[in-house]
Amino acid sequence: MSGTSELCLGDLGERGIQEHVLRPRYEGTEGFGDDSALLGAVNAPSELVATTDSCPTPLVNLLREPDLYHAGWLLATINLSDLAAAGAEPLGLVAGYTLPKTTTVTSFERLLDGVDDCCAAHGTKVVGGDIRDGAVPQLTATAIGRCVPGSRLRRSGARAGDRLLLAGSPGYLWAAALLETGQATLPEPDRSEVWHRACRPMAQLKAGRVLAATGLARAAMDVSDGLFATVRSLCEANGLGAAITEEFTLDERPASVARQCGLTPFALAQTWGDWGLVVAVRAEDVEVATKALRGEGVAAQEIGTLTSDGELTRGTAPWRGIAQERFSASSWHGGELSTLITDVLGAA
Amino acid sequence: MSGTSELCLGDLGERGIQEHVLRPRYEGTEGFGDDSALLGAVNAPSELVATTDSCPTPLVNLLREPDLYHAGWLLATINLSDLAAAGAEPLGLVAGYTLPKTTTVTSFERLLDGVDDCCAAHGTKVVGGDIRDGAVPQLTATAIGRCVPGSRLRRSGARAGDRLLLAGSPGYLWAAALLETGQATLPEPDRSEVWHRACRPMAQLKAGRVLAATGLARAAMDVSDGLFATVRSLCEANGLGAAITEEFTLDERPASVARQCGLTPFALAQTWGDWGLVVAVRAEDVEVATKALRGEGVAAQEIGTLTSDGELTRGTAPWRGIAQERFSASSWHGGELSTLITDVLGAA
Repeated sequence: MSGTSELCLGDLGERGIQEHVLRPRYEGTEGFGDDSALLGAVNAPSELVATTDSCPTPLVNLLREPDLYHAGWLLATINLSDLAAAGAEPLGLVAGYTLPKTTTVTSFERLLDGVDDCCAAHGTKVVGGDIRDGAVPQLTATAIGRCVPGSRLRRSGARAGDRLLLAGSPGYLWAAALLETGQATLPEPDRSEVWHRACRPMAQLKAGRVLAATGLARAAMDVSDGLFATVRSLCEANGLGAAITEEFTLDERPASVARQCGLTPFALAQTWGDWGLVVAVRAEDVEVATKALRGEGVAAQEIGTLTSDGELTRGTAPWRGIAQERFSASSWHGGELSTLITDVLGAA
Repeated sequence: MSGTSELCLGDLGERGIQEHVLRPRYEGTEGFGDDSALLGAVNAPSELVATTDSCPTPLVNLLREPDLYHAGWLLATINLSDLAAAGAEPLGLVAGYTLPKTTTVTSFERLLDGVDDCCAAHGTKVVGGDIRDGAVPQLTATAIGRCVPGSRLRRSGARAGDRLLLAGSPGYLWAAALLETGQATLPEPDRSEVWHRACRPMAQLKAGRVLAATGLARAAMDVSDGLFATVRSLCEANGLGAAITEEFTLDERPASVARQCGLTPFALAQTWGDWGLVVAVRAEDVEVATKALRGEGVAAQEIGTLTSDGELTRGTAPWRGIAQERFSASSWHGGELSTLITDVLGAA
């Protein structure tokens, strides 16, 4: 929308927003403007899945300036990552935005750009949504996907002795935090590359789909609240424990950041924000699953074994890791950035 | 959850809420606890639709005491009503709740009861969701449905000369407001019946599906923001105008309330909160469409004609009706109850 950079959403009103912002952007989407959005046609037998999640303030916005683009990108990734954990193909996203009337049209368009760009990067799109004014911004979305019947991945289905794989490249978001706060340095373009990855995390849709299609995964879950929370939830869903290795591999750039900060690779790998998948596979399938993932351009490493004793261990000691939790005073949400980094990485 | 009536969500934390509230309620739902919820299997070719909407404070809560049950019911109805307007069969609902940590477990369970009861009353269910703490409560949901390919109803597709039908029984919510504020009286059980209908509005899913299945509707839209806003939007989507009758029929109880208040039936019928559908049908199909709707137990009345002149008229005069609009200072949201009723009904 040109010539409206100073305008706020409250100046346009709902009908103005619809006409000047949303229609030009989405009118090519069939079903735009109807009461219900069109997700698309499904012609083969399918299991349909859905997931809904709202978006916290992105860490990258605390590190640099606020920019709703990053919140939009993260909103889409959070939801698509849950489809990835199910091994589903995305059919589309519906978004719901609550925004103050004082939100500028320009920043609203940054938000939409972030959601749309992220969806496009994952081969899907926004099909519909809802916008409402409110004192406190809140961004929610629902992603809908389809699975080939019988192939849907779940948290349950793993057995003792199964190996845990981490699909994806961990450590970028918190490496960016360490770089931005001056605790490590990298030359350009390495530093910018880390920042870019931190701002535009990708859901592991390819990984999920190849694991679902091949039947190699017995259970899967995405790393939304940190590795500890993920492994603990996966264990609980299966009545199992896990023995996690201390040997983690990071890509070279986050590895360099970790070294400069005196952190182990594990310390960075157990954080969140990179949207990897933790996958349980039979011991004899580790090699072929790893190969299948790498064939899709997805990094994969074995990080431990599921055990029958119900305990979580790391190396030889009990593992008491960090986990985000909502409705909890110990949640990291809302913490100060300086203590946040210590809290998240100091205990590792 | 027994023995926890004084507990707040913040006392339980996310894991406690999951274990003590959500698991007992939803563990029979396949896919509960997974990253993605299971909407179900689709075996026949389908067009899939989705809609997302958040829930304002229900008017019935302003009229009597706050009770999250009503917000839960309304949240589900709002979303299912959009599926009704598409002629879709619901596959399921995902819900997203932002609630203060001080919300009691008891009132959270009232919220869930309202959503679950409403879904059950419409033959569907909650398949998954998200819960998050926040200073300001916010309730959102997404409903997903399927249509037989080619039968999906849209806002567009109507022609000049088509007749407008109103499917559903209007006027109950605002009749309840007039009763509660002492502007009219009804004997029991009539008064309770009006209140019950106001608290538990039903989405017109049956109406939508019969209209989609028979091909009788050329366009449809639900009355979410009042009859004026609905007819105006339907006209805009088709590049048409509409001539609306002044003769509206109300059920006996809201008719009595209108009479006592010196209001025309139209004045009550043009409000919102009863989730009717406005449907465009060919002039020659009015009778058969009305009969088909009544065969499903849905009231239907002809309320006007679509015109080629682009004007909205009521009787012989231009129609300037009331409409809710977000991001607008003139929206009724947040108004005082006393002025609200005058604003909504006084101009009619």
